[in-house]
Amino acid sequence: MKVITTIKDMQQEMKKEKQLGHSIGFVPTMGYLHEGHATLLGAARTENEVVVLSIFVNPTQFGPNEDFDTYPRDFERDERVAKEANVDYLFYPSVEEMYKSSRSVAITVTDRVDVLCGQKRPGHFDGVATVLTKLFHIVTPDRAYFGKKDAQQVAVVDGLIEDFNFPVELRAVDTVREADGLAKSSRNVYLTDKEREEAPVLFKSLQTALQLLESGEKHVEILKGTIRKEIEQHTSGKVDYIDVYTYPELKTIKQAAGKIIIALAVQFSKARLIDNVIVDVQGDN
Amino acid sequence: MKVITTIKDMQQEMKKEKQLGHSIGFVPTMGYLHEGHATLLGAARTENEVVVLSIFVNPTQFGPNEDFDTYPRDFERDERVAKEANVDYLFYPSVEEMYKSSRSVAITVTDRVDVLCGQKRPGHFDGVATVLTKLFHIVTPDRAYFGKKDAQQVAVVDGLIEDFNFPVELRAVDTVREADGLAKSSRNVYLTDKEREEAPVLFKSLQTALQLLESGEKHVEILKGTIRKEIEQHTSGKVDYIDVYTYPELKTIKQAAGKIIIALAVQFSKARLIDNVIVDVQGDN
Repeated sequence: MKVITTIKDMQQEMKKEKQLGHSIGFVPTMGYLHEGHATLLGAARTENEVVVLSIFVNPTQFGPNEDFDTYPRDFERDERVAKEANVDYLFYPSVEEMYKSSRSVAITVTDRVDVLCGQKRPGHFDGVATVLTKLFHIVTPDRAYFGKKDAQQVAVVDGLIEDFNFPVELRAVDTVREADGLAKSSRNVYLTDKEREEAPVLFKSLQTALQLLESGEKHVEILKGTIRKEIEQHTSGKVDYIDVYTYPELKTIKQAAGKIIIALAVQFSKARLIDNVIVDVQGDN
Repeated sequence: MKVITTIKDMQQEMKKEKQLGHSIGFVPTMGYLHEGHATLLGAARTENEVVVLSIFVNPTQFGPNEDFDTYPRDFERDERVAKEANVDYLFYPSVEEMYKSSRSVAITVTDRVDVLCGQKRPGHFDGVATVLTKLFHIVTPDRAYFGKKDAQQVAVVDGLIEDFNFPVELRAVDTVREADGLAKSSRNVYLTDKEREEAPVLFKSLQTALQLLESGEKHVEILKGTIRKEIEQHTSGKVDYIDVYTYPELKTIKQAAGKIIIALAVQFSKARLIDNVIVDVQGDN
């Protein structure tokens, strides 16, 4: 595995790989790798000749009051995980390398952002789209891998690739969960012991909603109310949002129909957890 | 020469060329090709194994009161010119192919635009940056060729490539001129006979300024005044702007020093002509 820290070196290596006819699978991350990332790397390994992992805690996608400084980092462990996953190139640039002094162009995400997490994180997805645009130009992947846990991010990346014709195939991979159902996340380390015990309720409440849907309940407000009640009764977390939208367009609906996402965010003492299910609702209409 | 009209076909062809180890030279145009374009194609031909020409009159870079509908078009002639220039691929998409219905991301040019032509064409360079981002992803060139006549465009593209790390080398090619000095432009056809006779004064006035510079005159206001006087005395055109800036940053200066651009725009009855010289001023400081 080669660890590369400059944009120029990375672009040169990738150019060589392309000339060898190798397909490139890319997993962009902010590091502190867990099994979710390992699953993405596994999918990339299966489908491509070359696997590239990037580790970059991107300042432009954090708000002024968010956890950029305290976001967990452990490069040595990440490097081990990457080697075990048979990564070929680990791209690990500094903030200075990625963002030179002056900038004369900006990317704004104009749709799919005023809902879910985007609503409370103005500019967050602009930062995500900007850093991905840069990373896609640096790594020039054939396929890029994202976890469905960040479903809004997947929707935004889908729009980014589509609108700007990136020659990149978006691969959305199922959320990896602990045995008790809790979605894997770098931020799970912030949970207290008690909160860790409560946290599986988030996914359980989504399962309850899916059962309701299957039994014929299509009213979005009833689905949302059921989820909220279950979370409020069984956890100490504060519900940030529970929402149901079309997917990936993220448009508001009153009745569940077609491809939809049921998504939630719950704030615990130090950790804000998100989870979702995406489901194709067989409707009468 | 292959004429290609869909994004998907173009991306597939370019992928094949990359796998053959071929370098790709790209000349993006709005068609109605003249010798200026032929010069760009010649440079691309010399430096690359594959030459791609795109012809696309891009609606998003025209303002509501600009000449999108009447912009000159002649595909048959263009196709002939392209063949003569040994173009390998002519990309000729429709507006519908390039801009699908919904869009969820936008590019804004935040610097180098509030001067020169950008000042009177709000959003123009956003449109240019957007279409070039798309075209760069469709053609995946190693090198992209632009004429120095559109010096502000070159400056904006320089910023776009730099900020977003496009794996593309920007090649800026000298302005091609008629025997009498008039810069070649698709819009020259709009000139009346009388205006066509006057139009070489634009470049002559820039030469006068260069001579003044060489004789030691560094005051920007004096350089500008001299140019204005020459144009107003010898043409029926109305001066839109005459300006001197650093290049490519396009920052205002009072004294000419370092790499600068002297640029002008003159409105004739139906044609608005631009021209410029870029020069490295040997200063005392």
